[in-house]
Amino acid sequence: MLNVKTVQETLDIIQNEFERIEEREVLPLEKCMGRILFEPIVCSQNIPSFNRSSVDGYAVRAKDTYGSSDSIPVELRLMEAIKMGISPTFTLKANHASAIPTGGELPAGADAVVMVEYTEELNEGSVFIQKAAAPGNDVILKGDDLHEGQVVFPSGTRLRSQDIGVLAAMGVADVGVLKPLRMAILSTGDEIVEISATPVGSQVRDVNAYVILAEAQRMGIQARRIGIVRDDEETIYQTIKTAMEDADIIVLSGGSSVGLMDRSLEVLNRLGKPGVLVHGIAVKPGKPTLIARANQKAILGLPGHPASAFTIFRVIGKALIERLSGTSFPDTIVQAKLSVNIPSNHGREEYMPVKLRKENETLIADPLFGKSGLISLLSMADGYVRIKRESEGLTRDAWVDVTLFDEVKR
Amino acid sequence: MLNVKTVQETLDIIQNEFERIEEREVLPLEKCMGRILFEPIVCSQNIPSFNRSSVDGYAVRAKDTYGSSDSIPVELRLMEAIKMGISPTFTLKANHASAIPTGGELPAGADAVVMVEYTEELNEGSVFIQKAAAPGNDVILKGDDLHEGQVVFPSGTRLRSQDIGVLAAMGVADVGVLKPLRMAILSTGDEIVEISATPVGSQVRDVNAYVILAEAQRMGIQARRIGIVRDDEETIYQTIKTAMEDADIIVLSGGSSVGLMDRSLEVLNRLGKPGVLVHGIAVKPGKPTLIARANQKAILGLPGHPASAFTIFRVIGKALIERLSGTSFPDTIVQAKLSVNIPSNHGREEYMPVKLRKENETLIADPLFGKSGLISLLSMADGYVRIKRESEGLTRDAWVDVTLFDEVKR
Repeated sequence: MLNVKTVQETLDIIQNEFERIEEREVLPLEKCMGRILFEPIVCSQNIPSFNRSSVDGYAVRAKDTYGSSDSIPVELRLMEAIKMGISPTFTLKANHASAIPTGGELPAGADAVVMVEYTEELNEGSVFIQKAAAPGNDVILKGDDLHEGQVVFPSGTRLRSQDIGVLAAMGVADVGVLKPLRMAILSTGDEIVEISATPVGSQVRDVNAYVILAEAQRMGIQARRIGIVRDDEETIYQTIKTAMEDADIIVLSGGSSVGLMDRSLEVLNRLGKPGVLVHGIAVKPGKPTLIARANQKAILGLPGHPASAFTIFRVIGKALIERLSGTSFPDTIVQAKLSVNIPSNHGREEYMPVKLRKENETLIADPLFGKSGLISLLSMADGYVRIKRESEGLTRDAWVDVTLFDEVKR
Repeated sequence: MLNVKTVQETLDIIQNEFERIEEREVLPLEKCMGRILFEPIVCSQNIPSFNRSSVDGYAVRAKDTYGSSDSIPVELRLMEAIKMGISPTFTLKANHASAIPTGGELPAGADAVVMVEYTEELNEGSVFIQKAAAPGNDVILKGDDLHEGQVVFPSGTRLRSQDIGVLAAMGVADVGVLKPLRMAILSTGDEIVEISATPVGSQVRDVNAYVILAEAQRMGIQARRIGIVRDDEETIYQTIKTAMEDADIIVLSGGSSVGLMDRSLEVLNRLGKPGVLVHGIAVKPGKPTLIARANQKAILGLPGHPASAFTIFRVIGKALIERLSGTSFPDTIVQAKLSVNIPSNHGREEYMPVKLRKENETLIADPLFGKSGLISLLSMADGYVRIKRESEGLTRDAWVDVTLFDEVKR
């Protein structure tokens, strides 16, 4: 019999029993997209490093422009014009202005810029200011963007393209990131055959290994398939033992029956301490899920049905990967209206795959009540609705949170 | 002066002036995550290839079980048991049943399975059926999942992990996919310096090239930085000409002023026909955007401010990439309540970056009214709100569509 845990208990066990794998590597910034910061990034300079004009215009002392308007402009005397790339060495005097390009550095004394559109240069070395400027107008102040000593990104940040831009601005050309997690995917089951084979009798192709491999790739994991091993305790033991030498996490897939999971239990307990931590989760689909730790290595046993394996990997596998890499892969959640009733799930948390469509301006979620053995179901789903353990079921037209599978929507 | 187009006119020009680059390569399935199908995938077999039991139980003729219940079971005679992986050669006779494992093949004549939980095997070679089964109960029929001749994925499908699973199930071990688009990223501007340099005077580091490189990587493009070239017409011409030899799309970044964009105009017209197609877009931020076609090559000139360049690449660059690769990168959109008023944008479509937060159960969008020169703004934003040209502005508490930048949310 399975000693079943709730989803929350399982997540707590993952949190308490595993820790981040502290392996660092340094990469050039252009290879850091999607990578996870090993250490926090602290800004070592002010950006910009000077008060910079954000428009073409005239650098002024703001108070000299007060009261000016289109009809009653203020006349300011011109000092030397500011050039791109050259720091001005003079101080702007009272009732003076200095022509400045976009990106140019304000001279000492100046605290605002008036856009060229609101000025009229006169021949006599002076300029009419037709609009009052407040201090700071059209100026990016020194350190406005990023300031010295600021913790810009904490350790564990997964870098997006915008973050790469921030690092570029700070001159961080080489970045200390976490080495990718290493995952080995092992398929077990005498009925499983290679995908290039033509199944005979009730044989089935090794679908799950490919799905999990692709999911792992999406999460930036260095994953590899070990292949299919015979449903034999000693073979499974030896294969996992070898795989653990260069993998941080072993994923077992394919053994769908409780019988196999029970035998795997003994194998996993022999591999290292503390052994099996979770043996069955009160979740639908995916009850026969197994989590073990063999010393510092993580082992995840997935249910055999493809949709179950996929769902469990998205929820439980993801939590394990987040823990081992010290980052988060936040879900994208959208609200949608349920098109039909979903009955109670009798004390098991349920993840119901749904397909989304728009009706007028409203997002509608159609539950896919397929049999979890159907592979095509996976491909039709845009995401899932989580139905809590204690739920009495969900009613038609209820607003539900749909966790999207990924950014690709059909 | 810019000859300004609207966003919609620009998208139409992209649609009409460019076409999919037809370059195919064949990859093993395990390298196909995120890749784009070159040709449609048609299923060449029924999956499953036989009527399969989805539970452990007894294969029956459904009508033989009608009227059976816990208190008044029906007794059926047992025929030989079905074994995993072996096709039964007998036909199930009326008022008979046959033990069948999960995944086992139904014998001819049988049309349903009764779960073992609802049966009681007797010693005399018969079984009590305690629950009536309808035809098809607990059976996955031949072709139920995928059927022969079915177009499973159209050409241009970008493969997700679930889709990889469907291909594995069909035995598609090698897949014809589009070669990745090749992109060269060129930075221009005398004030731009390498990110490893310490800027002097009003020099700035080459932020945009890194942001665009990372975005391109995220979209599966084979992108490279060419580096920074001097703000000189002949140098820019020669550099682009050389880059076009092994790139499908050239991205120019860094020249922020209208002056440079005007000079680029002549360069781009010299490179090939028809030359510049769009020269300025009525959009905020990002007005000084440029699109050209030189024979079969696409050229995109981005505005200089990082937030503008990023936004334009997300909207216009994405449309161009979708056209050239014949796929779509659908945006993920969530609804949120605006926390403040956004004033009218006077005839320009506007993309306002926003940060999302939850207040009680409601998603709130805080507009980031920063100066578009600020790099840190990029990193703070979760997505943008599109404000249409004809909009009079948006009011506080209005529900708005937020287009998420990516699946990573803080």
